[in-house]
Amino acid sequence: MKKIAILGSTGSIGRSTLAVADRFADRIEVFGLAGGRNFEALSKQVRSFRPKVVVVGDGEPSGELVQACKESGSTLAKGVEGLAGLASDSNVDTVVSAIVGATGLEPTLRAVQAGKRVALANKEVLVMAGELVMKTARRYGAEILPVDSEHNAIFQCLEGNSRGSLRQILLCATGGPLRNRNRGELGTVTVEEALNHPRWNMGRKVSVDSATMMNKGLEMIEARHLFDLKSEQIRVVVHPQAIVHSLVEYVDGSVIAQLSRADMEIPIQYCLSYPERWADENKHLDLTAVSPLEFYEPDAGKFPALGLARAALESGGEVPIVLNAADEVAVEAFLSGEIGFVDIMEVVSEVLQKEMPEFSNNLESIIGIDHQARAVAADVVMKLRER
Amino acid sequence: MKKIAILGSTGSIGRSTLAVADRFADRIEVFGLAGGRNFEALSKQVRSFRPKVVVVGDGEPSGELVQACKESGSTLAKGVEGLAGLASDSNVDTVVSAIVGATGLEPTLRAVQAGKRVALANKEVLVMAGELVMKTARRYGAEILPVDSEHNAIFQCLEGNSRGSLRQILLCATGGPLRNRNRGELGTVTVEEALNHPRWNMGRKVSVDSATMMNKGLEMIEARHLFDLKSEQIRVVVHPQAIVHSLVEYVDGSVIAQLSRADMEIPIQYCLSYPERWADENKHLDLTAVSPLEFYEPDAGKFPALGLARAALESGGEVPIVLNAADEVAVEAFLSGEIGFVDIMEVVSEVLQKEMPEFSNNLESIIGIDHQARAVAADVVMKLRER
Repeated sequence: MKKIAILGSTGSIGRSTLAVADRFADRIEVFGLAGGRNFEALSKQVRSFRPKVVVVGDGEPSGELVQACKESGSTLAKGVEGLAGLASDSNVDTVVSAIVGATGLEPTLRAVQAGKRVALANKEVLVMAGELVMKTARRYGAEILPVDSEHNAIFQCLEGNSRGSLRQILLCATGGPLRNRNRGELGTVTVEEALNHPRWNMGRKVSVDSATMMNKGLEMIEARHLFDLKSEQIRVVVHPQAIVHSLVEYVDGSVIAQLSRADMEIPIQYCLSYPERWADENKHLDLTAVSPLEFYEPDAGKFPALGLARAALESGGEVPIVLNAADEVAVEAFLSGEIGFVDIMEVVSEVLQKEMPEFSNNLESIIGIDHQARAVAADVVMKLRER
Repeated sequence: MKKIAILGSTGSIGRSTLAVADRFADRIEVFGLAGGRNFEALSKQVRSFRPKVVVVGDGEPSGELVQACKESGSTLAKGVEGLAGLASDSNVDTVVSAIVGATGLEPTLRAVQAGKRVALANKEVLVMAGELVMKTARRYGAEILPVDSEHNAIFQCLEGNSRGSLRQILLCATGGPLRNRNRGELGTVTVEEALNHPRWNMGRKVSVDSATMMNKGLEMIEARHLFDLKSEQIRVVVHPQAIVHSLVEYVDGSVIAQLSRADMEIPIQYCLSYPERWADENKHLDLTAVSPLEFYEPDAGKFPALGLARAALESGGEVPIVLNAADEVAVEAFLSGEIGFVDIMEVVSEVLQKEMPEFSNNLESIIGIDHQARAVAADVVMKLRER
């Protein structure tokens, strides 16, 4: 029986994880659930899975949730300490890290320090603190398995091969909803258009990141840390069908690829079952039905995010933190109608040129830089609005 | 230093193996070469690689070859015994089995009994004697690595995974030169058209087998033995670009694929370097240049070979031996203009209905059935010619 804790259980990844846990109730025990402000959804999850521990934010939980915990025999904990406690609980084998943004960073680091298997869905953890997290994982023998379909694919393609024989990885990108637009047409892109992702049903932030291709830029940085790669070993390839999730090219010219339906339950389940694979008849891929599979070079001119992310990856230190923070602020400003689509990368690019606090490889420094970058980004957004 | 023996060094696979050995002269020693009647080519190989042992057929070797062996310090051996001696020589680590047809069967079995690694390129070995060879390999701890690009791909896709988690394999077929013909147009196919393979440059027999898709049928039978699969775990998928060489679908819905340029040196090298991979800058695959990749269901009505091979696979015993023998006779008759293209499968199908000697799982019985099936096939060809 694998005992899991889900940090971010009411979000998209959290819900998919519970769908897998439900299907394999004979192999997975949901030991702990941590949700945000969606008390109604969390209450339902508590009644269904009867976890030993439930964690909520600092605010007052709803009466319904308190009642659900009582009936299910669940201990209710709160805030950062509650999260850290669940993430490092000695009963837990695997922590699913699916709390979006910087909030997820600290509990994930606690799980890593406790030597857990961490199924990592939170992008920021590696973008902001990749070196710190991987160093800590090596030190405490924690296993970091990527939930992202692309990184999960690469993880699978590396199985049974030595890292020394890797030539490069090909990180697949759908190209997002704006793939077929001209560069000149990007100025008029609406929020609705940017959110209209052709293949994956995702949250608003990541959907816009997919439209700018910053999502793939952040994934390049994640890949660098997860697989200990040099910048020149990471290539992005546009694959609109989202069937091949990524590929690894080896030094002898063989390329190994992982394919599946665009269904996040598949990589999530793999993170839980690894090194085994658990049978699910419903996840069959009908290859002839999804043919043809296309692959293109990304348009670096149209999507400056890729170049910005590549430069951040190569600089390291504070630069990826600033990139990530500025992007988040800029995407929010776009979503709330304050700035236009092409302004997103203008904000990021401008913030990257500002002076930032000195970087040290610890959580305090990382969070300090994140805050500073967000403040600067908010100023840049303001300036653009006054234009 | 890996010491290799190449059985069939002047053929297409043999020459490609020597190209790999030449490139990795610091890791591979060519200990022995066995060639057929092409003494000129063999002499050149002997002068280049200076093998310890050279084996030729039963006839008289050319003066040039005798001279080449003398100058290179190579011992010259002959016939079946010479082959068997080289295949089981205690100096040899890896035997590349690339002698076409039944002639290759006995020395391959000797290499297996000697516990060698066998890089297997001879289809007949597993089609005719799959059970015997695999049983012997398990008994003597021999390692059988497939050279065929499709089986080599599956071998690579299985690395790092347990066999129990395999759902099915997808064996890729280019569809051959007649892929886009209607069923009704097959009656008029000429030898030239049948030999005009779109992707791979191969011998005449295998080119015609590719046109009838019997090549894929025989590969299904090989796969059954190599990977210990049930018939329903083996699917054929048409992939005209010949970039994805085959795929493995796992029980959890993940599919792992191996891709590379259509270059036999890649799987051959893998058989020699395994479990390592050796760097070769010239074997890079440019994925965007080969896009799109298409996958179709094969047309079972147009290509009866697939159904005949499936039935033979499921029957086992003497049936695959008969299938293979009848096909070889029929293809030869087609190549020499005695019968038409659609007659090839008519011959095979008719021979399969004849009474054959009882099957026992030993070399003598297998070769007896092979001879008998060839004789019957010759009769059927004769009858068709008189039509």
